[in-house]
Parts: sequence; structure tokens; C-alpha cells
Amino acid sequence: MFQSFDAATTPEQGPPRLADLRAQMARTGLDGFLIPRADVHQGEYVAPCDERLAWLTGFTGSAGFCAALTDRAGVFVDGRYRLQARQQCAEVFTPVHWPETSLAAWLKDNISAGKIGFDPWLHTLGQIEQIESALAGTQIALTPSANLVDAIWPDQPGKPQAKAFAQPIEFTGETSASKRARLGKALADQGVQSAVITLPDSLCWLLNIRGEDIAHNPVVHGFAILHSDGGCDLIINPAKIADLSDHLGPDVRCHDETALLPMLQGLTGPTQIDKSSVPMAIAAALASANVPVVFGQDPCALPKACKTEAEIEGSVTAHLRDGAAMSSFLAWFDANADQGITEIDVVKQLEAKRAATNMLRDISFDTIAGTGSNGAVIHYRVTDGTNKTLTPGEIMVLDSGGQYQDGTTDVTRTLPIGDVSDAEKRAFTLVLKGMIAVSMLRFPKGMCGRDIQAIARVPLWSAGLDFDHGLGHGVGSYLSVHEGPQSLSTKGAVPLEPGMILSNEPGYYKDGAYGIRIENLVVVEEAPKIAGGDPHRQMLQFRTLTYVPIDTRLIDRSLMSRQEIDWLNSYHAECRNKLESTLTASDAAWLVKATAPI
Amino acid sequence: MFQSFDAATTPEQGPPRLADLRAQMARTGLDGFLIPRADVHQGEYVAPCDERLAWLTGFTGSAGFCAALTDRAGVFVDGRYRLQARQQCAEVFTPVHWPETSLAAWLKDNISAGKIGFDPWLHTLGQIEQIESALAGTQIALTPSANLVDAIWPDQPGKPQAKAFAQPIEFTGETSASKRARLGKALADQGVQSAVITLPDSLCWLLNIRGEDIAHNPVVHGFAILHSDGGCDLIINPAKIADLSDHLGPDVRCHDETALLPMLQGLTGPTQIDKSSVPMAIAAALASANVPVVFGQDPCALPKACKTEAEIEGSVTAHLRDGAAMSSFLAWFDANADQGITEIDVVKQLEAKRAATNMLRDISFDTIAGTGSNGAVIHYRVTDGTNKTLTPGEIMVLDSGGQYQDGTTDVTRTLPIGDVSDAEKRAFTLVLKGMIAVSMLRFPKGMCGRDIQAIARVPLWSAGLDFDHGLGHGVGSYLSVHEGPQSLSTKGAVPLEPGMILSNEPGYYKDGAYGIRIENLVVVEEAPKIAGGDPHRQMLQFRTLTYVPIDTRLIDRSLMSRQEIDWLNSYHAECRNKLESTLTASDAAWLVKATAPI
Repeated sequence: MFQSFDAATTPEQGPPRLADLRAQMARTGLDGFLIPRADVHQGEYVAPCDERLAWLTGFTGSAGFCAALTDRAGVFVDGRYRLQARQQCAEVFTPVHWPETSLAAWLKDNISAGKIGFDPWLHTLGQIEQIESALAGTQIALTPSANLVDAIWPDQPGKPQAKAFAQPIEFTGETSASKRARLGKALADQGVQSAVITLPDSLCWLLNIRGEDIAHNPVVHGFAILHSDGGCDLIINPAKIADLSDHLGPDVRCHDETALLPMLQGLTGPTQIDKSSVPMAIAAALASANVPVVFGQDPCALPKACKTEAEIEGSVTAHLRDGAAMSSFLAWFDANADQGITEIDVVKQLEAKRAATNMLRDISFDTIAGTGSNGAVIHYRVTDGTNKTLTPGEIMVLDSGGQYQDGTTDVTRTLPIGDVSDAEKRAFTLVLKGMIAVSMLRFPKGMCGRDIQAIARVPLWSAGLDFDHGLGHGVGSYLSVHEGPQSLSTKGAVPLEPGMILSNEPGYYKDGAYGIRIENLVVVEEAPKIAGGDPHRQMLQFRTLTYVPIDTRLIDRSLMSRQEIDWLNSYHAECRNKLESTLTASDAAWLVKATAPI
Repeated sequence: MFQSFDAATTPEQGPPRLADLRAQMARTGLDGFLIPRADVHQGEYVAPCDERLAWLTGFTGSAGFCAALTDRAGVFVDGRYRLQARQQCAEVFTPVHWPETSLAAWLKDNISAGKIGFDPWLHTLGQIEQIESALAGTQIALTPSANLVDAIWPDQPGKPQAKAFAQPIEFTGETSASKRARLGKALADQGVQSAVITLPDSLCWLLNIRGEDIAHNPVVHGFAILHSDGGCDLIINPAKIADLSDHLGPDVRCHDETALLPMLQGLTGPTQIDKSSVPMAIAAALASANVPVVFGQDPCALPKACKTEAEIEGSVTAHLRDGAAMSSFLAWFDANADQGITEIDVVKQLEAKRAATNMLRDISFDTIAGTGSNGAVIHYRVTDGTNKTLTPGEIMVLDSGGQYQDGTTDVTRTLPIGDVSDAEKRAFTLVLKGMIAVSMLRFPKGMCGRDIQAIARVPLWSAGLDFDHGLGHGVGSYLSVHEGPQSLSTKGAVPLEPGMILSNEPGYYKDGAYGIRIENLVVVEEAPKIAGGDPHRQMLQFRTLTYVPIDTRLIDRSLMSRQEIDWLNSYHAECRNKLESTLTASDAAWLVKATAPI
């Protein structure tokens, strides 16, 4: 099993650990200390040694931070995690609505003066600049410090040491040499000599390697300095790449981790760093050595997001494999949902179905299987302590995905257990209408995710409802299941481009009652010209990658337009065409029934 | 008549005037000179003395600029004005697609080195900073200069001198003293001592005055320095406010225009300026005197946008008066459209109907009355030279508005002349669907115009169509018909708030063939709670202000949903209820027919 069901959080340890941290703060002359969720590489998921926030506070969500002062400690979490943080943290931690309340605003409300320590490897230059600017004119100052949590964490695990391996050209569609040459040329065109790469998925994409440093994310931890000649310095634990010298070739020069700061400080030409991801410690090292710095986005970010033909084909294949496994699971679910099974049974069965493909490298994240009120915890992860038996009348949110070498999947379906009430059906149908609106959308080139994401929300808004998460995130190619810069959310500030893979996942959550989410992955493509359209307008559309039946028993057909019904029926016909032949006879029979037109 | 029909442009003068300008450039050692449309106050509409761009190039649109080099001259215009610029400018001027091509990019493409002069009173600090940053590292430099167009414009008109007058409390809903006190307190809370106000509508709103310095915009040109104690220094030609000393009161201290720079340079406390509107000359004067400067939005902008109850009530009343005039006009139009009337006849008749209310202070902009292919010129203004006779089979875009003391109106209707083809009906219906979608929309507090504007475009996008202008702009209260910061466009970056008045005006334009636009004004208001909605979500909606029949003969009913048809029928029923009793018997009979349910 890739997923475990431990609580992974020990809220009762929060108060003594916080007391230890405060003793450490007193010893080092600090009035506060920041504990982010992030690691050095700003990954969404972190290694056990970097789980400082969870270790201290008990909160295990994938975003947020703690600001510990001498008399209070705020845990800053966003809309997805409000419920979870209240459940996971002891009372010594005060939940703070973030980003509505910024760190600076909270600090100003809670202290009039003081020194707030932070670990400069765990915060980006952009974050520190923003906080410092918001604190300007106050007596509150940020100050870099050793990590005080590491100092009080006696059994802190070691750093990840997994071996990296090559991702073959048949799946990447472009050699590392070609990627380095074209990115190097683009840097040169902008007068940049070197770019510092700190994001693991950028590193993996650039070098066509993958690894196992983080659960469910096939990434390698390391740093790279890409030069405008296409050459590259890779700073990494040498043991991790011992088998890769042929794959990397002579233009990728490898160095162990102690070389990082001296190598950066030896750069002489204009050096590009990304404020949104570069650790403050690296920016400070460059500044101290007077290296000329240029600010710009990680040069791999956008090219990585625009998938090659090979990556798209791989994704299509991976999604059909995954869709067959999901269908087989759903057939089992239908037969067993009202037979006293639990959330953990669901997770185990689903992982077993994916594993039976013999192609599963990992799950792409811990499966979210929340029945009834657990479904309202947007990023719920079942543990032995929270595990619930499925009860007729409830609905379950099931959000899961697989890491296959040809692609990363991520799919959510909402499933009824027996007969469910009209209120749930109505909300499900409103969510479905939003999901279909995006699936059917054509839009002009140049639109960013931010410009179009509201289209999925209109049916919910009309009913006085909404959901507190983005409509969709970028997805990597056998890489992070959440990747930027593309995004279907109010943060989606880059124009959508052909080849970008995104999720389309509207939802609705009724606190303490139930959750609903429906998610397909889609890839941006050029829309074919249509009769009567303006010939000069370049339009894009989303091609659906995910083929898994959507439960029609939850649909209130009277709320749907003819066009929406046609879309759904046609989607289900495609599910049948694409999946039926790959299933066992009994699963195929289930599929035919599940995909019958409404 | 408030509107005239002169060409107001002399393209044939372009080449000799450009030659004069180049001679002037040579004399002053410049390799280029920038000629913006803007005046000192960055108004969208400018006084005759500030029509430098039109005088030089022939282009009379409300946005754009010319960059004259020694061997070429670019005229930068956006999507609304591409066709118009091509028609109005002589061939010595090269049209440039702006903002797709920035000034800096164009300069870099056209010269390798040189000094580009600009008048520091006509460009904002933000503009100059942005251009300079984009030119960094090149041999092209901006340099402030006397205005070279003024130097070669022998009969340049004088500055506007119209008398200002008070806008009574019954229409503003808040005294100037109250506005100044609350804005002053907000400045003090941010540690700001004084704010420089350069925008005429901000000045008018703050002091509850209006004027006639600009055609169709009841503004007064002047500058104000608002202090944190609520006091204010008003820098203005004293003749303009000779009758207003009682109204302004002792806390508004008046000075003539020569006092501006010395007074600014005498400021000692933190002084706020708005980068997006403050002339470079003012920023430079403050900097040269070491006045501590704080950057922030014009403090009047947001409060002005959120209308008081009195302003909203005034607007409702003004719109019903205007709607009755429009209806009477439409009855005349229906009887005469195929009788050989011209675009100018239409403009005259419409203005006469508004004037017959005896309440019309001005039109709110030059009426756009474009039949057939003239309708595709998005901001068309008919002249004796372009005037067309209405021809059966064509459709006409008619965009107009009135300035009444209780409110500013702006309404667009698209009208058929005889029977029109199915293609036009289909496009009209798609535009109407978008306009209705916004009219029916409920959305959560916190959304900006940018977040929701695409909703009006979805029906067009689905058909491969779109329009190259924003969905809607802010509208003032007996002030500018285009006001910020609220906007329903990709530039709309402030959250929509109750009381903001906006236009909702999707369109479609087929170059050389026809134009379509449908526009109502709406005001943002709290949406009532609805059954089944989440009680904690604060939702907003748009309340319609404009009541004028939408021509149902242009509708392809088969493209509309039940909900859309219901909205339209209910809108028309309201038009009838609100307007019928105010019309003559024959106009009322027309209204009943025009508003019959479809």
C-alpha cells in the first residue's frame, strides 16, 4: 500500500512542543518564530524531516504556517483547511483565516514590537520582501535564524536519499539537451547568463529524471544552475545520481550539496532567480557576493506546463488505464457500498484496482474518501481515528489519482450510498452543470485561468452557494499532481496555452453534513474553426482526458439544459467506447448500466 | 444641439504638421516626441486646446497616442479604434496595435539610440516609470521637454474658463465637509498628511461642484490638496469659482494656478500621489523639494464609485426620464427608419427627445449612430462626411446618454431597418444572451470585474465570436460617463461593492458589415438571501437602472433558454409599467407593442 492510515499527527504533543519552542526563542533572543509548511524546494508535499508544522501543531494540511509568539501562536490556513485545522490542533494554537488575514496584519494586532525569527532556507525572497514591506514603519522586524524547530525535534528523520532514474524520451518527447539548449538561448536573448533552479519538478523536467524523494511525487531534490550555453551545474547528493552519468551526459556537471553556496557566489554574469520560489538564503548569498541578479519566473515553469505530443499521448493512455481501474472499483463500490464497508476499505480497494494494472508507480496523492460529514473536509485524509462506515443515505467524495510512467491522473467522483435526499441531488447537479460548462467552453487565446474560472461557479452562485477552493490546478507529466504556472483559479495569471493539463473540479461543501466534487483532467488545445465564427479569432478549448462514469443517480435532470444532457450522454458513450473492451465481463456490464443515457 | 457633425479632423494637414514637428524636434535636439491624447488631468475627454493628437494626426478617438520619430510616426490605438485610425490618419502615420505592441517595444524595433522628448504635464509618473524600465539597458532615453506641438500650433484654443456651480446635497447625499473629514481621517490612519488630487471628477465629487470645462462631462479643471484634518487647498483659476465661496466654506482655501508648484514644494508631511494619474511634472516637483511621498490610489476614487442612496435614487429617476425620451424616440424611429432618414437625422431627433424633458444639461457623450458598416466602428461618431442614409436590411447601433443633474445615463440599442438577415439575428441573440447572463448574475462579495466579465462572452465564444472592448465601465453621478476604479473588464481589479454603477454592454462587430451592442446601466446591490443558499455567503447582484425596450424583432427565440426568455419578458413588463404613463398616447401604444412578450 502506498497510503497509510496513521493519524500522523499528535495534537496532544502541541502544547509541550510549543513550550520547548518558546524556551528556544527566549534563549536566542527572539519574540517570535515562523514555522512554514514549506521545505527548501517550496514543494507542496514535503519529506518527513520537513514536516515541522505538523510536528509542532498537529496540522497536516498541504498549505499554511504557524507564527509562534511568546503568548500566542497563530495557525494560518486557507478555506480548504479551516475545519481540519480546528480538528487537528490543540487549543494553544489559534486558527487564523488566511489569506484574508495576512501574517503582517496579525503580527501588528498581537505585538507592538519584537524580533520574529525565520529560517531563510524555508521562505522565499518574495515572501520575506512582502512581509517586511507590510511591517515597514512598525517596531516588528523579521530576522533570519537557525531553525528552532530542528533544535527541539530529537528524533527528526534524515533527508530523503532515494535514487533518481531516467524518464525515457518516449514519454518526454524532448531530450534534456534540447530543453537546455532552447531555455539557454531564451536566457541569452534576455541578457541572462545563468538561472538558479530550486523547484524539484523543474529540475526533473529539465534533466528528464524522476525520483522518490517525496511520497506520491516522483521528484528528486536538488539544485541546478542552468547556463545560457545549455550547460548545467547539478548540485545534489552524489549517491542519488550514481547510475545516471550516461543519461545526464558531460554538459551536466554534478557537485555535492556543500558546493551550492560557493558555486552561486562564484557566478559573475547576470543570474536569474524566481522571487516566488528562491529561498531567501540563496538570494542573500548572491547579494553578499555582489552577483548581478535578474528577477524572472523559473525558466522551466512555462515550457514544462506546455506538454509535448508524447506527453499528451502518454497522458491519454494513462487516463484510459486509470479509468478502467476506476470503473472496476466503482462496480465493486456499487455492490458493496451499503454492506458496512468503511472509508479505509474504499481506499484499499481503489489502490488495489490501480495496482492490478501492474503499471502503477505510486498513487498521485493520499486518496480522499470522505463519506457524509467527512466529505465536507475538503482535503480529508482518512485515518484509523476518523474512519467511518458508509451509511445509506450518505454521499461520498472520492478524489484519487495514480502516478504512471506515461502520465499522472487525478479524478474525483461523488457517489451515493443507497437513496440520497433531493438537497444533495440538487447541489450535485449544480456542481455538475459548472463542470460541464467548462468542459464545453471555447475561449479566445490570451485568456488566463482567472478570466474564465467563474464560469463553473455561476450555477452555484445562482443558488446562493459557492466553494472555497480553486476550480482547477495544473498537472504534471509523471510529476507533481499540482503544478504551475497554469491554474483555473483567481491566481491563474498566465494565458492558457495548448498542451497545458489542468483539473476541472468544482465542488460544494456543507459543513458537518456532506461534500460534493466532480473532477476531470483536461488538456488545452486549439479549437477547430466553426461555421459562422470569425476567421481571425484563435480559439482554444479543453479536451477531456479523464474517462470515468459520473453517477447519474445523483442528477436532478430537471435542472439541466438540453445541451448539458447531450454533453453528459456523449461523455458516457465515450467512456463506454473507450473502456468496455478492457474490463472483465461483469465490470463491463456495470459500465454499460452506469453509462446509460439520461 | 450639444452634438456637432464637423469632421473635426483634417488628415490632409497631417503630413505638413508632422514635418513642422520634426523641424521642432531637430531644433531642440530630440530624436522623437510623444503626443498623448491625455491632458494634464488625464481625462478621457479633453478640451479643444488639448486635442493635440487629433490636430497632428487626424485621429479623434478617446484613447491612444503618437510617437513621432525622424523617419516614422506610430499611432498607437486599441481594438476599438483600429478601423477609425486607418480611416482618419494620413499614410505618414503608421497604425500600431496597442497594447499588444508597447511603446518601448516599438521604439526598440525602430531606433537603436536616441532622445525621446515628452511633456511632463501630460504623462503620469506611472507611465514614464514603466516606459523607462522597459527601455533600461538600451540607448533610448526619455527626456522631459516643452510641448513641441504647442510650439507649432498657431491657432491653438485657450484653456477652458467655464464657471463652476454647486451640486446640491439632495443629489449628492453627503456634504463636502463630511467627505473631506472621512477621507482626511482615512489618510491620517495611514500616516499620510496630504493627498494631491489631479483628477477632475475626484475634485468635483470631493467639493460637490460641477462645471463645464469639458463637453459632455460636467467637470471643473483644477487641482486640490486634501489634508488629513479635512481642510483642502484648491488651486484653480479664481474666476471659475467666484460665486462659490459660501458653498466651499472656509476650510477650502483657494489659490490661483501659479501657486501649484510652490504649494506642493512647501508640503512637509507624507504626501500621497497616485502613480496612475499624477503628472510626471508634479512628481518631479515633489521629489526636487524632498517632499516625503507615499504612493496610493486617488483617495476619492473608491468612495466616489460607491454611490450614496441619494445618488442611486437620482440615477433611478434620471433613467426613467431618459427611458421615456428614448421610447418616444424609438417610436419615431420605427415609423421613419425606412423613409430615407440619415444617421444625423437620428442623432438630432434623439437629442431633441432628450431636450424635450427640459432637464437635459448635456448629452453624456457624442451619440454613436452607425448603420450597416458604420456600426462596426466601435466608437463611431457621425460627421457630414460619413453620414449614411438608413437602408432596409441594415441594422443600426445607437449608443447615447444624457447628463441630468440627478444622474448620468448611457444606453445602447441595436435597431433593425426593415427585415434583416438571420446572420444578424443570430449574432444579436448571442449578444443578448450575454447581456442577460450578467443581468441575472448573483456573485459573492470580493469578486472583481475581471473575475466575472467572461460570463457575458460565453455565448459568443461558443460560436467562435467575441468583441474587442470591455464588457462595462463605471459611470459617475452627474459626472464622467466613464469612471473608475470599477470596471467589468480584464482591467477590473477592484472588488465590486454595493452602490457602484456600471454598464453591461456586450457587442459583436463584423468589420465592413455591421455592429451590434446592447447596453444597460446597472448598480451593484446586496442580493437577498434565497432559500437553500448558504447563510454565511454574502452575495451581490446587479440591479438594472436602464428601462428602454430591446428590439425583439432581432431575436432568434430558438437560441434562448426559458430563463432568458422569462428575464426579457419580465424586463419588458417593467419597461411598460414604469414608462407607459409618462408617454403620449401614440408613444404609449408603440411601447405596448414593443414590449409584448416573446
